[in-house]
Order: sequence, then C-alpha cells, then structure tokens
Amino acid sequence: MTTATTTFPDTIFDTRESQVRSYSRAWPTVFDTAEGSWITDRDGNRYLDFFAGAGALNYGHNNPVLREALVDYLTSGRITHSLDMSTVAKGELLETFTERILRPRGLDYRVQFPGPTGTNAVEAALKLARKVTGRESIINFTNAFHGMTLGSLSVTGNSMKRAGAGIPLVHATPMPFDNYFGGVAPDFQWFERVLDDSGSGLNRPAAVIVETVQGEGGVNVARPEWLRALADLCRRREILLIVDDVQMGCGRTGPFFSFEVAGIVPDIVTLSKSIGGYGLPLALTLLRPELDVWGPGEHNGTFRGNNPAFVTAKVALDHYWSDDSLERATLAKGERIATRFRSLAAEFPEQLATRGRGLVQGLAFTDSEQASKVCGTAYRNGLLAETSGPDDEVVKLLPPLTISESEIDLGLDILEAATRTEVAR
Amino acid sequence: MTTATTTFPDTIFDTRESQVRSYSRAWPTVFDTAEGSWITDRDGNRYLDFFAGAGALNYGHNNPVLREALVDYLTSGRITHSLDMSTVAKGELLETFTERILRPRGLDYRVQFPGPTGTNAVEAALKLARKVTGRESIINFTNAFHGMTLGSLSVTGNSMKRAGAGIPLVHATPMPFDNYFGGVAPDFQWFERVLDDSGSGLNRPAAVIVETVQGEGGVNVARPEWLRALADLCRRREILLIVDDVQMGCGRTGPFFSFEVAGIVPDIVTLSKSIGGYGLPLALTLLRPELDVWGPGEHNGTFRGNNPAFVTAKVALDHYWSDDSLERATLAKGERIATRFRSLAAEFPEQLATRGRGLVQGLAFTDSEQASKVCGTAYRNGLLAETSGPDDEVVKLLPPLTISESEIDLGLDILEAATRTEVAR
Amino acid sequence: MTTATTTFPDTIFDTRESQVRSYSRAWPTVFDTAEGSWITDRDGNRYLDFFAGAGALNYGHNNPVLREALVDYLTSGRITHSLDMSTVAKGELLETFTERILRPRGLDYRVQFPGPTGTNAVEAALKLARKVTGRESIINFTNAFHGMTLGSLSVTGNSMKRAGAGIPLVHATPMPFDNYFGGVAPDFQWFERVLDDSGSGLNRPAAVIVETVQGEGGVNVARPEWLRALADLCRRREILLIVDDVQMGCGRTGPFFSFEVAGIVPDIVTLSKSIGGYGLPLALTLLRPELDVWGPGEHNGTFRGNNPAFVTAKVALDHYWSDDSLERATLAKGERIATRFRSLAAEFPEQLATRGRGLVQGLAFTDSEQASKVCGTAYRNGLLAETSGPDDEVVKLLPPLTISESEIDLGLDILEAATRTEVAR
Amino acid sequence: MTTATTTFPDTIFDTRESQVRSYSRAWPTVFDTAEGSWITDRDGNRYLDFFAGAGALNYGHNNPVLREALVDYLTSGRITHSLDMSTVAKGELLETFTERILRPRGLDYRVQFPGPTGTNAVEAALKLARKVTGRESIINFTNAFHGMTLGSLSVTGNSMKRAGAGIPLVHATPMPFDNYFGGVAPDFQWFERVLDDSGSGLNRPAAVIVETVQGEGGVNVARPEWLRALADLCRRREILLIVDDVQMGCGRTGPFFSFEVAGIVPDIVTLSKSIGGYGLPLALTLLRPELDVWGPGEHNGTFRGNNPAFVTAKVALDHYWSDDSLERATLAKGERIATRFRSLAAEFPEQLATRGRGLVQGLAFTDSEQASKVCGTAYRNGLLAETSGPDDEVVKLLPPLTISESEIDLGLDILEAATRTEVAR
Repeated sequence: MTTATTTFPDTIFDTRESQVRSYSRAWPTVFDTAEGSWITDRDGNRYLDFFAGAGALNYGHNNPVLREALVDYLTSGRITHSLDMSTVAKGELLETFTERILRPRGLDYRVQFPGPTGTNAVEAALKLARKVTGRESIINFTNAFHGMTLGSLSVTGNSMKRAGAGIPLVHATPMPFDNYFGGVAPDFQWFERVLDDSGSGLNRPAAVIVETVQGEGGVNVARPEWLRALADLCRRREILLIVDDVQMGCGRTGPFFSFEVAGIVPDIVTLSKSIGGYGLPLALTLLRPELDVWGPGEHNGTFRGNNPAFVTAKVALDHYWSDDSLERATLAKGERIATRFRSLAAEFPEQLATRGRGLVQGLAFTDSEQASKVCGTAYRNGLLAETSGPDDEVVKLLPPLTISESEIDLGLDILEAATRTEVAR
Repeated sequence: MTTATTTFPDTIFDTRESQVRSYSRAWPTVFDTAEGSWITDRDGNRYLDFFAGAGALNYGHNNPVLREALVDYLTSGRITHSLDMSTVAKGELLETFTERILRPRGLDYRVQFPGPTGTNAVEAALKLARKVTGRESIINFTNAFHGMTLGSLSVTGNSMKRAGAGIPLVHATPMPFDNYFGGVAPDFQWFERVLDDSGSGLNRPAAVIVETVQGEGGVNVARPEWLRALADLCRRREILLIVDDVQMGCGRTGPFFSFEVAGIVPDIVTLSKSIGGYGLPLALTLLRPELDVWGPGEHNGTFRGNNPAFVTAKVALDHYWSDDSLERATLAKGERIATRFRSLAAEFPEQLATRGRGLVQGLAFTDSEQASKVCGTAYRNGLLAETSGPDDEVVKLLPPLTISESEIDLGLDILEAATRTEVAR
Repeated sequence: MTTATTTFPDTIFDTRESQVRSYSRAWPTVFDTAEGSWITDRDGNRYLDFFAGAGALNYGHNNPVLREALVDYLTSGRITHSLDMSTVAKGELLETFTERILRPRGLDYRVQFPGPTGTNAVEAALKLARKVTGRESIINFTNAFHGMTLGSLSVTGNSMKRAGAGIPLVHATPMPFDNYFGGVAPDFQWFERVLDDSGSGLNRPAAVIVETVQGEGGVNVARPEWLRALADLCRRREILLIVDDVQMGCGRTGPFFSFEVAGIVPDIVTLSKSIGGYGLPLALTLLRPELDVWGPGEHNGTFRGNNPAFVTAKVALDHYWSDDSLERATLAKGERIATRFRSLAAEFPEQLATRGRGLVQGLAFTDSEQASKVCGTAYRNGLLAETSGPDDEVVKLLPPLTISESEIDLGLDILEAATRTEVAR
Repeated sequence: MTTATTTFPDTIFDTRESQVRSYSRAWPTVFDTAEGSWITDRDGNRYLDFFAGAGALNYGHNNPVLREALVDYLTSGRITHSLDMSTVAKGELLETFTERILRPRGLDYRVQFPGPTGTNAVEAALKLARKVTGRESIINFTNAFHGMTLGSLSVTGNSMKRAGAGIPLVHATPMPFDNYFGGVAPDFQWFERVLDDSGSGLNRPAAVIVETVQGEGGVNVARPEWLRALADLCRRREILLIVDDVQMGCGRTGPFFSFEVAGIVPDIVTLSKSIGGYGLPLALTLLRPELDVWGPGEHNGTFRGNNPAFVTAKVALDHYWSDDSLERATLAKGERIATRFRSLAAEFPEQLATRGRGLVQGLAFTDSEQASKVCGTAYRNGLLAETSGPDDEVVKLLPPLTISESEIDLGLDILEAATRTEVAR
C-alpha cells in the first residue's frame, strides 16, 4: 500500500503555519525530494545545497548507506522508541562511539542522551556544570549561539532571539571571542583580569561555554592557541570548559571533534545535528566521568531513545570514521573553497573578507545588505546558502562533507557570479 | 546489504552511559524488537507494554500502517531533514491537521513547529505568552510536569528535577491543582483571591499552564467544571491559558484534545509524544491566530523539519481520526481498566484508590513502597508499567490506544496479582 | 547665634521636590513645630497626630525626657557619627537593651546595627537567613510591607510599589495571612500542603517573614494561635522565622515585642521606627546567637553609628520599659479606641468593620473611597490619620503611646463625625 | 537634668553585638567624644581622624556652627520627624540647595528624599532608571561600591560583600573602570564594542552607575576625559548616566559635585554621607526633571523627613558653599598630602604608588599586608586611617575638609614613619 498523498492549497503555509517560520521566506518554494548535495522542489527545480540542514547533513541528504541500515532496521521489527531503556541499537551505538571515536583519541567521556536536539544537550551541560560546582554563573562569548530554550538562550548572543525570551536573561556574562578586537587587545585580557580581581563584580563562573568556530555568529574561527589558552585558564581557575560542538563537531571542520585541532580536552562536550547521520533528531552530552553526578532521571525527556537515529549514527561512524579519509577530504575541500574565496576577496579588499575552517567557510561583506542579495541571487540560480553574523553580513557555506569537487565548483561559480554582480554594482 | 551488527559488552550501559539513565534500572534488560503492545528483549523475553513510550506510542509500537508510509517515504527519495522550509510532507500534514482535527472542532489555531520535543513546545509557548503580554510570571500547578529545559523546568513541580537546574527557578508561582485539598477548599479560592488583591504580592501572570490530567504528577484528573472555571478565570483576568497536551493529547483521554471534555478553547496548546504517531520526535505549539506575533526566526531549532515524523503524523490522523471510533474505543477500554481497578480498590479501601480518564488510569497506593514493588513484580511477570506521583505512589497505566481487550485483561491479571500479594502481605 | 532662617517660595516643594512625595499631598500644608501628640504648621494651625511618624514616634513628638538627654549629649562634645566603632553611647544602649528588654523576657539575641532604617534591618535579615540556610526562597504574606529597597520590596505585597522595582521581583512566594479567607479555610492549609508535597513546585524556603499586625496592609491582626502555629511549622520544617517588628515593635501593640502575645521566639527580629525613641533614624536586627555567622563587614553602611539615636533609644528604654506601666496603658488606650470603633461599626454594619491590637486600630470601610474622604475631612478638622490596606480602605490609627485619654477622645470625636457624615451620605 | 550614664562591661560588644562589626576590630577601643579632626576614647586617648566617618564628616566632628543650629532647632520645639510631609526645615533646605548649589552650576535637578542612607539613594536611582527606560540591566564598573541592600549590592564589585547576598546577583554587568588595564587598552573598547554588536549577548542597559573616584575600590581616580567620554557614550546610546556621589560629593574632591571636574551633567546623582553636614543620616537622589516619573509614594521610607539633618545640611551649605574658598582649600590640602605621598613613593618605587583627587588620597602598597600593618601602627600612634581596594592594599586618607595644615602634617608624619618602617623592613 502506498499512502495516499493529500492535496494542499499553496496558501497552507501562510495561513496555517506560524509567522515564526524563516527559511521558507528566503527560499519560497515547496521542497520534496533530496539526494546527496541536492534538493528538488515539487515543480522539479533542483537546488545545490550549501546549507546541509544547518550542519545536520554532513553525510548528505538521504545517504544510501545510512538509509539502507535505517530501512532494514524499521522493516525488521526492531524497537523504534525506547526512552532511556537499554536497547540493542543503543548498545551498538555506544560501543561503536567508544571504539571509533573515543578510544582512538584517548578520550573517556560518559555519554548522556539528553533529548534529541542541540538545545537539550546544552541545557543538560549547563545544569550539570552548575550542579557540580555549586555556582550559577556561566561565561559565554560574543556572538555565541547555543539554542532557543531558556537556559541555552541565556548564553546566546543574538539580541533579537534573546528578546524572544520575554524575561530578563541572567546568570551569563559575555566575554570577547577570539579576535573580537581585531588583534589589538591581548587574549583574555579582560576575562583574566576580572577573574583575578576579587572586586571586579563578576560572579564566579561554573563554566565557560564556547564554540570553536561560531557558525551562526558569522563563521568566527578561534585559533588553536586561543582555545588552548582558554582551556588552560579554565583549568587554573577550576572553571568547567564546555565545548558546544553541535554544529562544528562530527567532522565539519575536519577532525571528528572540532577541538582536536587545539589538542584540548573539554570537561563537557555537546553533539547533535550530524551525530544522527541521516538528519534524524539525536543529541549527546559527553561528560568527564568524574562529573557524572546526575541522579537517575534528574534530567529526562521523551525522545531520548530515538533508535532509528541510533542506527544511522552507528553506521555513519563505522562508514566514515574508521580511518582519516573523511577528515583529509574535508580539509582539502575546505581549502578548495577557501582558495576561491581568498581570490575573490583579494579583488574587492574593501568589500569582502573571508574566513573558515574545514567545510565551514564564510564570505564576509562590508555591506551586509549585499550578503543577503547574493544569497537571494544564488537561490534563484539554484544554490542554497544562508547568511550569518550579527548583521547577517556573512555568506556561510556548510556543504555536505560528501560533496564532490565538481559540485563545489558549480556552487562557487554561482556564488562568485552573484557576488561580483553585487559588489561591483 | 544488511548492516553488520556490533557486539557490545553487557557492561556498556554501566560503563559508558551516564548515571542519569533511569528506566533501564527499573527494567534491567536489553530490548530489541517491538510490535503493537509488546516489546521483546534480546533474550526473547516478551513484555506487555502498559507504558507505551510514556504516552508517545498511542498507536502501538511499529504500527504497520504508519511504518508502511514511513518506509515508502524513505525509499522514495523524499526529503528527510528540512528545518523550517516548506515541504510537501509538511504541507500535507498541515492540511490533514486542519481537516481532520481543527475544522471539525471549530478551532483555528496557527501551528508552530518549535523543535521536536515536548519541552521545545512548552518553551515556545511560555516565550510567546510573555512576549504577547509583556509580563514575566507564569502560574503553574502543584505536581505539574512540563519538561527539563530551564523554562519548562521552572513550571514543573518535582523537587528532585528542579534541584537539577543548579540555579533558583523563578518567574513561576504554583497554585493548587483540582482536588488538591480533597474537596474541602473551594476551587480557585486562593488563586482568585490573590489576583483580586492588589496587595497580595503575586506578580501579575502572563499565563497559566495546565495539564488536564497530570500524568507524571500521579494521574490527577481535573474535572471539566474545574477546567471551565479556570478558562473563565483566565479570560476575565486577561491571562493566557496554555494547555500542555503533550501527554494527554492525541486521544489519550478519549477525544483528540484532552480539553474537549470541558468544552474550552485554550489560547495556546502544546502537542508532542504521540503527534508523530510512530514514536518519532515531533512537537507542535498551537496558537490562537491573534497571538502569532513571532518575528521570523525568533524561535528556531535544527530538527523542526523532521519529515519522516510529518509523514507518520499525517497518516495517523488520516487513519485514526477520520471518525470517532478511536475515541469511543479508548473510552470503553479505559472503563474496562477502571472497572477492574475500582473492584480491586474496593477490596482494600485503606490501601488503594483509583483514578483516571480514558486510557490513562492510576492505582494509588497509601504505602508508596508498595507501588514500586508491584511494578517490579509486574516486570518480572512480563508487564511494563511505571509509577508516578510525588512519592511514586501511583501505578500509572498508559497502554497503547490500539491495545486489545484481551491484552488489557492479561496485563490487569498480572498487575492485580502483584497488587494483591503486596497489599495483603 | 541663631541660624538665619531662609525664606522659600510656597512653590518650592512643587517645583524642586520629586513627584514621589505623598503625605504632603494628603496634608497640603507646611509643618513647623511639634510636641507630644500635636503638630503645628507655620500658619499656626494645630493638628492632633494619630499617625505618629507611621509608628516612629511612639513616645510622641519631641519627648522632653529624650530631648534633654539628646541635647545634653550633643552639647557635651560626645561623638555623633561612628560607623560600627565601639562607643560609650553604643555600649550603654547595648547594656540597657540587654537589661531592660532581653533579660526580663528570657531572650538572648545578638544585636546587629544594619544601617538606620527598617529596610536596612530587613535586608540584613534576609541576607543572613539565606546565608545560614543556603536557600534563596523566602515566604512572605499577602499584604505584607517590609520596605522599598530591592530585597525588602521583593517580600512586599503592594503591586504599585512592586512595579516601581522595574525588574521582576523573584525569590519570594506569598502565603495567605491569618484570616485571609475570612475563616473558611484552615490555617496553613496551603502552606503546609506545598511544603509536604515534594511535587508542589515550591522552592524550599530559607525563611518566613511576617508582621504580627500588618499596618500598611490594612491593620490585619494575626491571632496568637496563628502565630504559634506558624512558629511551630517553621521549627518543624527547619525554616527560619523572621518577625518584622519595625512598626509593631517598641510597644505599639502593648508589650515591647509584638510577638510576646503569642509566646513565640522568632529566629530573627527587625526593629526600627520607634527604637530610636525620638524619631531619629535607627534600626536593629536581632539574631539568635547561633545564626550570627556574619563575616566582619559582610554587611555594612555609613550610618550604623548614629550615636544621638543610641542616646535617645537608651533613655527611652530606661524611662518607659523599667516596668509594665506603658504596656498596660497602651492596652487600655487601645481598648478605649476599639470600644468607640465597635460602637460606630455596629451602627453601620454593612459599611464598617473594626480591628486592631493595642494602639494600632483600624476602621475598615466597605467603600474604600469613604475612608479617604474621612481622612480628608479629619485633616481639615485638625486630625492627622492615614489610610492603609490594598485599596486604602482602612483608616489606620497609630497615635503616640503617650497620648492622653482626652486627646484620644478629641481625635475620635473628629473621626466619628467625619465617618458618620460620609457613611450616612 | 543629666541623663544617668549606664555602666557596661567591657565585653558587651563581644557578647552582645553581632560578629558583623568591623571597624571596632581594627580600632579596638571605646570612643566617646569628638571634635573637629579628633576623636577621644573613654580612657582619654586622642586620635587624629583621617577617616572622617568614611566621608560622612567633611566638616569635621561636631562642627560648632552646625551644632549650634541643630541644638537651637531641637530646643525650639521644631518638628523632628516628618516622613515626606512639607516642613519649614525641608523648604529651607530645598531653597538653599537650589540657590547655593544648583543655580550657580546651571543645574536643574529635582530632589528626591529616598530615605536617609546612601544605599536608599542608589536603590531609588536604579529603580527610576529601570522604570524610565523599561530595561532591567545596569552597567557597573570593576571595584564599584554602591551599598549593601540588594539592588545596590548587585552593582557592587566586592566578592565577599556580594556573597553575603545569599542569592545570585543579577541584572548588572561590570565594565572596566578607567585605567583598569594600566593604559594599554583604549577607553571603552569593550563597552562600546558590545553595545555596537547586536550579537554580543549584552542585555541593553537602562543605566550606567559610576563613581568618579572609587573610594572603597582603592582610590581609583577616573580622568575627566574618561568621564566625558562615558557621558558622551551614554547620551549617544540613550543609556542613563548615574553618578554615585555619596562619598565623593559634598566637596570631597574639591568642587561640590565630584563630576564638575569633567564638565558633565549626569542624569541622576546620589548624595549622602556629608550632605547632612553633621554626620546625621540624610540622602538625596537628584533627577533631571524629565525623568521624574515617580508616582506618589512609589518609593517611600520612614526616615525621609529627618529634620535635624535638614537643618545641619542647610547650614553647612550656607556656611561652606557661599563661595569657592572651601573648594580651593580642599585642593590645596589635597596637594599637600599628594606631594608628601609622591616623595615617599619615589623613595620606594617598587613598593608604593600614589593616587587621589582633592582630599581623597591613596597610598597603594605592592604588598597588601604592609598596608594593613601601616594602618595598625598608625592607630597605635594615634592616627585613624583605613585600607581600601580589592586586596585592602591601599591606605586611604579621607580627613575632614576642615582639617588644619598642621594636623595634616602631624598625621602624615605618623603615617610616613609607619610606612618607612614597614617597607624598609
């Protein structure tokens, strides 16, 4: 039996869905199928996807290896929904995560399934950091993005999103992210000073939460030495270090964890987006064993046991993380984009700048309106890419890691043409 | 190709998974397959499931109608992950939800996809209520459960879960749920009085959030007249009424929305758990149209576009909500359980009490330890049922709505035997 | 040398003083001299004062015994301002307070000088209660008044005053004061129930703060048995009991401490207003010795060492509290007022009610506008009395304890005439 | 009649007064009389007072001009305590303040009497700033000191004092005070950047609160150009500027208001300490007229009408602020101290530094323990001076403005000798 499709009026999204929707405004069509780096709308128009589910589709849309395992699982009568009960699928994921990811990197994290979204993972991390330390305050960074539930929102920078809370967001103090002053101020000058100074008025923090590359914040890349200095500062001060690897983990920057480039070991790590592999909801909070002071059920949630995502997560780890080929390919592809971007920026040094790491690459426009127009033109020419940054001034590329070189080139051709037209106007 | 299974040591859950896990302690086995009302562990032991994913599996495990649609969707190259882009699967779900659920009930809600878990839906509801009213304070009820992220946790009653926050939970004031004083105090005596009294010290609330039946709180059933009086009080005071129907919606109490029994129309409704139909993560926040003041992207989340769940949600609505047969069956099955429970309780009037609505039924033990022991015995005899209530004193039954009468009887036989043994001890 | 007086324009208060002023609107004249129960304005109009500095002038205006000691101190070169240094005047006050007040009552409080106003004393009490218990939440009561600084305001009920904070006031949960439901609900039904119930959502409180008679709240009198039950409840739950005796202490209700009538011993007591005796700023926070865990300087303030007030405070204790004659006289005078009030209320049972203890007596009007009009008429006829209560519906009498019987009768004549005119209208 | 003195045991302070006392530990004697720059203990030992009530005694102890007016007022039957009623004494103070202070400086503030202590004035300022702007957040500065009640404490830097709150202090974000980085970072680099950046995570502030010279914070002197830049930044960003002149106002730095040196006009100014003139409790909050949106009684307090302090305040203004002689003398005396300090510091450049403005002068020790020892030695040699700064590393001099040059020299001799002994050790 095939499910009967339902006809719906074109106006259904406008009339029935909340005004909160956003991507559907930038890309005003109705998508239907997807494969690899491509999405097709119901009129048959194809779009090259340099957005990849905001980083949730590192292995591409409907990756066939993962799909086969998923369909096999579903059609074999295996359990789908299991809360935090032990299941075979969860056991296999834990074992695979241990063997493929943790052990080769010398890591010994405990794995918490905090609910299937990034913000669940961040909320769990913040709660645990506060419980362990007995302190309330968290240090976040300028232009951080950690999620939309109240705890995560309080450590997020975007003022429009913060205003949505409807209550004053407290218990978080922002510090300057790497290079916030264009290199003119010493790293951690302010942060160290207020920690040193018992009269500074800073509440002693439970934890620091940081992204190694701020995606939503505008592709701001923390240097390895900055991350090392931050980790060192946290250790000296007995402040927990949380790396939010929801968007930058799972190979986005090259290595599995984005912090590997700095050689640091965070106390707590959050993973989501591409950890499920196939775009299915899943999130993990990784804890140093000595921090695992949770009581049973002290944090819970209905969809912690999303077994289809356990299955695709496990297969993705097996398939892509048994050796370093994906990491090397990601770095090479990233450099391919970066090279083109640098050339382009060199032509318009007043108007463009470029930054990125691995397969998160940003083209920053001096005139933020141009960035939006470039993305609009790209969409009309068959390329999906979004802006980020506090003023939406950065075109951010997050293609699938599995993208081909020719697809990269095609996308960059579209983007480059749109950019030239716009900045030369 | 079949995915190679991975061998994992029995100790993997103990050594790798966080101490926060909970159900895996009550039911210490490794589950593997599931169908309808049954789960089977990897040793082949079968368990009758009166828990049903804490209400996420109203249509049973791996419901074949939904699975067929799901597998068909997955194998047809249809898009899986789409954030808040418009997709055919989303359009079909919106149209079906409109035609099957909203229109027949004379409701005109806007639909927000707030992220795929109940707590996302609650956080969105609270944020919007605060934004609309410009007030911060929320009224919740004793023994409420609304979720584990910071906003939802602040309106949740359980003290152990609240302590997990690590910060003082503020902006919420609890009021007595229906029958909190065993009928001796007039309804809303306290709530109305503090609202009337400009010197009461109550911050004027933005909204009231309520469950019509408190599942986690111990199967506390609000009478229709209490709900009507609450809705009336909210309307007179210009306080928004949020019904959290995450666990009690989707037919759990009989009608699709649990508040239908009272004939009220809440301002905001949250749905999750069984709305996806197949146990896949999905949540909706329903808003009266005039409350839809969200700015684009003011609330967001990576897994808002979980298309597989859109598909199973739509098919579930088509299959189960085209007429009132499911509602009538649920009420009949509920009465079947309630009748047995009442008889049992009549035998032990000092030790047992019973309450419920539709297919959420509770057996309350005077001695809370007995409730846990009964669930333990039931597990050993092949029945999964959990306790709830502030002291875990209530055995709570949440079987699939699709359960058969003979399965109900079998489960009740196991439970009744375990109860008799325990209370007669 | 006599200080040259300055001529000032009649408009100076309107044009130079902030709009926040309030009594000067109800009593729009310019006062100049005062003695005992009388104030005289600069035009020579005399007013009988049934307001007494809102309870700060229990011994009347410019009490000659206290004035002589004060002037003697000032003219003897004795130190005026001393922060928290030890001074002879402070030593004498501590000794006198010990011998006249604490020892005869079997009390062993440590004395903190928290700054010279009631709200300083309350803030110190709340801070210490939180420090001692490690909890943040405070239980206050409907219609409580504890002060205008942020900590005190958060436990104050009046919604207009709370709105002045400009931030959400948190960490306090109001409970019903005695007789809040007119006797129909059992005492502490709600409070005990939410404390008992681990799922109630009430944050476990550090302390309860209570006035034995709520002056600003409308002359609400807690019965002794209610106070005893509250003290008992606090002791059983290990919640600290703070009695705010700023307005009702120093003999206002008869005995020195207002809680003596109930035979309870609070953990912390705040005193201010009449403790200085002469209307000079002074406040004390009394602590059970085992609660005195303050670090040196952990709470401070510039005017903790207001030696002129130490002197008048000491002399007032010597002069008025060496025996029980003041207490007996206060009770007798209070009964004199209460008797007249009861007669009056009996004439207009639909419109008037009466309540009070000692020399705080209230006449409650069903129609709150009448209360304000009565006070306006009284002012024009030479009597100062203010309204209180959430709707300003209660005429509150706080005459000096040293008032004569004929002065009482005169004031009551004026008030009674004004009331008759108003309620019979 | 002379009031009988009471004998008290030497132990009364230890056994009866709270452990919170602090100055009495540094200066363990019992003071009794005072005059001008001198205090005498009950054993007849005289101490030269370079502390002056922490800045509350700018005109010296028991200033005879003020005392005469005060005693005259008290013995003339004039009203003592009047809440916020209009009185002759208040009218005269308002007129004198207008004519002597405001008009000559071209200022047009409304005057609020917020209660008689500095922290009352600060709380009123913060409340009003939040009410006017509708925002909650306040910017304070590192090492700020604004008071001990909850609102003031939240903008105070000292970690020990903050911990006394017992709740997380929120709604305030510290920014670096002038010269916080020893001149290596541009002024307001961080503050301007986070205001500019809509993604910085800084809640938009209602107000900035600043001391022009941080007394408790360690005699940190803001340069006029820094203050001007701050005022300019606030104006451009529509953030209110509050200058807390509780300690530095009333001529301490030379001019009446400490901000005059920068030529700025704050939106709100707090005054206390020496505004009463004689050490009697008094505080003012000055508001630009358009900010005076208080409702009547929205902020109140029992001791707002401390008429004896109105009298001494008025006479002090008449006597000391009719011309610029006090200002010039203060600057000269300050320079006298600064010159000696600079010479001393030049001898020990590794161990000493000096800073100050007018008659607040600090001697900063590299080794903070030396500062405490120097003050201890000074006390034993008859000089009262206290330490300040986050590590108590600064000997802070706040002598009466009325001190003589020979008294200055005597005090400096004592201090210099103690310092030499200590640093040369």
